[in-house]
Formats: sequence, C-alpha cells, structure tokens
Amino acid sequence: MDGVIFGATLVTFSKDEGFGRIENSALAWKDGRIAYVGPRDGLPDSAQHAVRQIEFNGLITPGLIDCHTHAVFAANRAHEFELRLKGASYEEVAQAGGGIVSSVKALHAASYEELLEQSLPRVYDLIADGVTTLEIKSGYGLDLENERKMLRCARAIAKRTGATVKTTFLAAHALPEAFAGRADDYIEAAISWMLELHAEGLIDAVDAFVERIGFTPAQGERMLSAARTLGLPVKLHADQLSDGNGAALAAKFGALSADHIEYTSESGVLAMKEAGTVAVLLPGAFHVLRETQLPPIDLLRKHKVPMAIATDLNPGTSPLRSMRQAMQLACTHFNMTPEEVLRGATVNAARALGLEDRGRLVEGLRADFSCWRAHHPAELAYWLGGRLCAATFKAGVRLEIE
Amino acid sequence: MDGVIFGATLVTFSKDEGFGRIENSALAWKDGRIAYVGPRDGLPDSAQHAVRQIEFNGLITPGLIDCHTHAVFAANRAHEFELRLKGASYEEVAQAGGGIVSSVKALHAASYEELLEQSLPRVYDLIADGVTTLEIKSGYGLDLENERKMLRCARAIAKRTGATVKTTFLAAHALPEAFAGRADDYIEAAISWMLELHAEGLIDAVDAFVERIGFTPAQGERMLSAARTLGLPVKLHADQLSDGNGAALAAKFGALSADHIEYTSESGVLAMKEAGTVAVLLPGAFHVLRETQLPPIDLLRKHKVPMAIATDLNPGTSPLRSMRQAMQLACTHFNMTPEEVLRGATVNAARALGLEDRGRLVEGLRADFSCWRAHHPAELAYWLGGRLCAATFKAGVRLEIE
Ligand SMILES: [Zn+2]
Ligand SMILES: [Zn+2]
Repeated sequence: MDGVIFGATLVTFSKDEGFGRIENSALAWKDGRIAYVGPRDGLPDSAQHAVRQIEFNGLITPGLIDCHTHAVFAANRAHEFELRLKGASYEEVAQAGGGIVSSVKALHAASYEELLEQSLPRVYDLIADGVTTLEIKSGYGLDLENERKMLRCARAIAKRTGATVKTTFLAAHALPEAFAGRADDYIEAAISWMLELHAEGLIDAVDAFVERIGFTPAQGERMLSAARTLGLPVKLHADQLSDGNGAALAAKFGALSADHIEYTSESGVLAMKEAGTVAVLLPGAFHVLRETQLPPIDLLRKHKVPMAIATDLNPGTSPLRSMRQAMQLACTHFNMTPEEVLRGATVNAARALGLEDRGRLVEGLRADFSCWRAHHPAELAYWLGGRLCAATFKAGVRLEIE
Repeated sequence: MDGVIFGATLVTFSKDEGFGRIENSALAWKDGRIAYVGPRDGLPDSAQHAVRQIEFNGLITPGLIDCHTHAVFAANRAHEFELRLKGASYEEVAQAGGGIVSSVKALHAASYEELLEQSLPRVYDLIADGVTTLEIKSGYGLDLENERKMLRCARAIAKRTGATVKTTFLAAHALPEAFAGRADDYIEAAISWMLELHAEGLIDAVDAFVERIGFTPAQGERMLSAARTLGLPVKLHADQLSDGNGAALAAKFGALSADHIEYTSESGVLAMKEAGTVAVLLPGAFHVLRETQLPPIDLLRKHKVPMAIATDLNPGTSPLRSMRQAMQLACTHFNMTPEEVLRGATVNAARALGLEDRGRLVEGLRADFSCWRAHHPAELAYWLGGRLCAATFKAGVRLEIE
C-alpha cells in the first residue's frame, strides 16, 4: 500500500441508496487506486506497512466533481450584478449589449497568460473546497483563436493544479457580432474550428446553448451531429429559460447530460431516462437570477434520471466558487436532500462527464477523495461559507492549493 | 507611522453616500489608529519611514463587523436541516422538541473547554473572510452556570483570536423545561443571573427573543427595563415570524438595534428612526427557512433607518460562517445593493454595537481593515464561496488565522 487513512467516517456511495457510511474506517490506496475501504479492524496486514499513515477524525467523501463550469474567463461582471439588483433581467442585460458579449470582449483583450492568471485562483478555490475533477467549457472566444486560447488555458489549469480537467467546446454559446444575422453560417464555422481543435487534442466533449436567446434546436442539432461524427461525447444547455425541447434533443444524441432543464417537460425527462442522459442542475444561476421555475425534480426522481449538481461557475449568472455552496443552494432552492446533492456532486457528476473510474469510494476506483472537518455528511450542504475542507487527494496524492 | 499599505483601492465610507472609493491609495496607521487615508502621492513624509511597508494591488475595506451571532454553541444541527428539507417548519421543529432545545441539551453536556474548541473554528472562519469585530450572544444555557459558560467562551474567543468580541446576554431566548408554564418566573430568574454575570464583567449588552414561540412583549419589556437600570445597552430579536410590535418595543428602550424585523410595520420603522435604533437584517435565516416575508427595506430606506447585515450564525436557522455570504444573500433575497450591504457590514454594524471608533476608513479611527483579492467593492457581495480575503488587520496588527 502507498497510503492509508484511519479513523474517519467514510461516505462511500457504494450502493445506489444511502450514503454508504462507514464509521471508524480505514481507507487505503496503492498505485493511485483505492485498495481497501472498510472498517478499521478489517484492514489487511499488507496495509499496516503503508508508506503514508494518517489518522483523521473527520469525514471523507469521494473527491467532488464539478461537471459544468465556465471557469476560464477574463474580468468579472460584478458591475452587472449591481445592475441586475436594480431590476434588469438576464435577457434585458443581454439585449443591452451586456451579458456574454462583455465577457467575449474581455476575453479577446486578455493574453493567454493573463487569462490563465485570472482563472487559476477560481479553480484553486474549487479545489480548496473539495473538488478533484472539473469540467471547463470554452465559449467566450467565439472565434478559432480565442476558443483555442480558452481550451489551452483549461489544459494548463489541469497541469498546474493537478486536478482532472475535462474540456468542452462551446463555441455555440452566443452569436458573435461578426456573424450577426447569420447564425447558420456561424455554426458551420464553429464546426470547422471544432475539427481543428479536436485534432489538436483540446476537446473532450461538445456543448451548445439552445435557447430563445441562444441557438435554435436545429442549429444545436447540427453542432451535436457534427460532434458525434467525430466520436465526441455531447451535452446541452437546455430549457433554462423556456421549454425548447432541449432535453429531448440532448437525449436524441445520447448526450452525457442535459444541463439547467428548469422548463423540461415529462416527455423530455422520459427521453433522458431512455438515453441514460444525466440531469445537471445548476442552482447558482437559479439563485442569482432569482428564478422561480424549479427544475422538474419530482419527475427526475420518479423516472430515476440521475441528478448531478454543478457550480456553473461563470461571471454573469453564477459567480459560484464552491461546490459546497452549490449543494447548499440546491437543498434550499430545489428542496433536494443532502444525500441527493452529495451524490449529485460525486457519483452522478462522474457519470455526467463519462468517467467510470471515480465518484465513489470503492476498491479499484481512483483514490480521489476529500477530507472534511465535519462528521455528518449533511454538514457539507448545511454550512454556508467556512473552511471545511481539510485536504483533497487525487489518485492518492494530496493536491496543493495556491 | 507604524505601517502603511500602498496601491490598494480603498472603500472608506467617509461620507454618508457612496463607497468613498480611493484608487491607488495609501493607508497608514500609528498606535493602532488610522493616521492617513488618501491618494498615494499625498502621503506625508513622516509615513515614508513606516516600520512596515506593504504594496497591495487589491481592495481594502473597513474590517467587517458581524453584529449578530450565536457563534458559541455545541453540536451542529445538520440533521435538523435534513428534516426541514422534508417539510417541517421552524415552529414545528421547535414544538417537536427540536430547535433550540436540542442546542440547550448539547450545550449543557459540553464542558467549557469542549465548547471553546468547537466554537473557535467558526469564529476563525468569520475572521478568515474579513471580520475583525463580532458580537456573540448567550442563550443556549438558560441557567446561570451555562449562560456563564457561554459568555466566558465568548471572552476567551476574543483573547485567542485577537478579534473584538462584544457579548450579549440572551437568557430570554427560550423557556427551559424547568420553568415550563412559568415564563414570568423565568424572566425574574434570568434578571438575577444578569446582575451576577454583569458584576463578573461578562455582559456588554442584553437581548430578548420576543415572538409567538419566544417571550411576550411584556416579558421582553421586563428584561430590557432591568438591563437599562444597570446601564446596559439593549437590543431585540423582533418581528421575525409575526408582527409583535417588537421593533417599537426596542425603540422604546432606545435599543442599539432591532433584529430580523421581517414583519415590522411602518409605525415600528418610524419608532426605530426616532430612537436611532439600527435595523439588523439577517438574510441567512431568511434563506435557510425559505421565508417569503421580506423585511420592510423600502420603508427603512424611506425613513433613513440605518440597515446592518449580520450572519446570525447559529446551528438551527443560519449555519452561516461568512459575512460575504450574508452580504450575497442580502443582495439576492432582499434586493439590497452591494453598497448597502457593505455599509451594513461596516458603518451600520459598528453603530448596531454602539462602537464609534470603527466601521469606516477615516483618520483617527481604529486601524481595523480587511484586504481583498478583488478590485470592485461589488465583488464582495457578488462571489459565492472562494477565498477572497487576503488578510485582516485589527488596530494595525494582522490577525493570524488558525
Ligand atoms: Zn453553463
Ligand atoms: Zn439571532
């Protein structure tokens, strides 16, 4: 064994129901994989001689997985936050030339180095609060060069922080001015960039923003179809502000996830069930935009569609730098239980990223786990603020926080 | 000069409107007091030779002041949080023997040392997110010995952390079982304890919970009246769940603050205005309890009653370990502006504690300030989660975080 932690309360999620809690446990790993999970007194002799032995009287969960972020961006939009507090809606802000457009301008103006320097602290914040794997989308570049800049930043963040980063190509996020009135042409251009950036090894999945203020279902379909031709997994920003049949469209392409889905109907939920598409719920944007339309949680439960939770970390609608806070907001706003949100931040988030080697504390999976100054797993969704995370380990190696 | 910080953006609140922002500033202090606040190039020669010279390219605000907390408690109530997510109301939880009663039991069971050890991390979390002064209430003891234990803990926390702690005697928080059916007798007992604990130097102010599920206005009046006789400042938990004329009662006694006040009417607001009583708004409990009755923000604005913001940090209704998060919640739920909430966490919070020597960055006031990895003051209310606070200084000395 390379290491073992004694004495913690584990949340294993080893079964489909319940936390899978083990008190006074031992958790051992070897070659980056979990080698033993169980009661302390069941630890095999071989592990007694592990190089690294730690006593920890707290809670250990699978490393948190943030499966939907726009963490790479330049400049924040705190000023727009002020504006919205004076009553402007998301759509009004967008139509007034604010919103995504201002992020696109700032991103174009920033060099690769500046962008990396601005984005790193946000990702370190996520890691400092328990994250070991995250997704980062492009989509503020909206041209080849700047989409590449974003995706390269995401790759660099993985190297610098040690966390796993899955990149998602989201050129179909907003229509750049250069293509005003020519959204179909823009989608074709974006597909050509996708080919190029995929060849450069920068793309792990493809996403599109299908919405009244985004792209049409037909345009989304064109993008996802091209991605599937390349063998890339897909996902969709769907049904956030209106029911545009986005969830069904995602399901049609066997998407890993349909995200937001506040307005998704039962037929959309059934299509997701059929396709094995995960529902990624984003309570940060719901909170900040003071939405009132809840995602169809009861339907998702009824049809057993796996629910994941993510920060949606972005400068406009979800300036959320902590998975714990996302979990708290999901409990409060969506009436989800602490178990559902923690499962949504681990087991189901892994599935939303197509990762089968993590998300639970089970022998053979990667030794990705987070150590918390807490005892009851509900505490992770209960506290607002604070410094609960004592350490995060990826493949058995402790991540250093800058 | 003892120290000077160059280059930051200052939020001084030197005037009654606006942030009082100074870009590319200098902030100097001597003997624990602010000696210079202004543009960098206006710094007097004497400060050029300060012992400590720091270059900081971020934001500096007055040290945050959390003017309403129940930070000293034993055991959290994450399990109750789970229960409430299944639909139980605050009152139902209270009537079922949960709520405050469970905190009282846990507090009785904990030794002074255990209580201190459990409470310190929460206060360090507040400090780590910018707090230099906080209030801590008793009120889970409900007998002489245990109220004393709580107040002694609060005093010890001040010594250990270096932050200023103002203590508030809140024996009139809930009726202990020993006094069931004899609330008037309990108030008399509590008054006798107040005399004793005040003589021991443990009490800085007195509070009472006047509410359908708390004490009657007459009982609150009896408590506040006794406190005033001792020359102690008073405050009140008022009108949180119903309009019980609590704000007017607070005003009648010249209270420093009336807290919660979701249900306060215009006449109550006018009485507060007349008495100079600060409105302490507590968005954490509002958020966690999913309340819908907003405090009368527009009336408070109209009548220019100063509004403060606080965490209400407590295990039942507001497990909130960060003033920034309180500010974020106040913006989102109460539709307050970033300026209002930051002023509410500094200038007006100082006033709510009767402190005239802090809350602004003005020459002659105490050199209590917080340094932030941010540039626009709205960022402090904009981000959810994250590690924005770079350092906190009390009287010119940097607070160390454990
Ligand atoms: Zn998104
Ligand atoms: Zn309170």
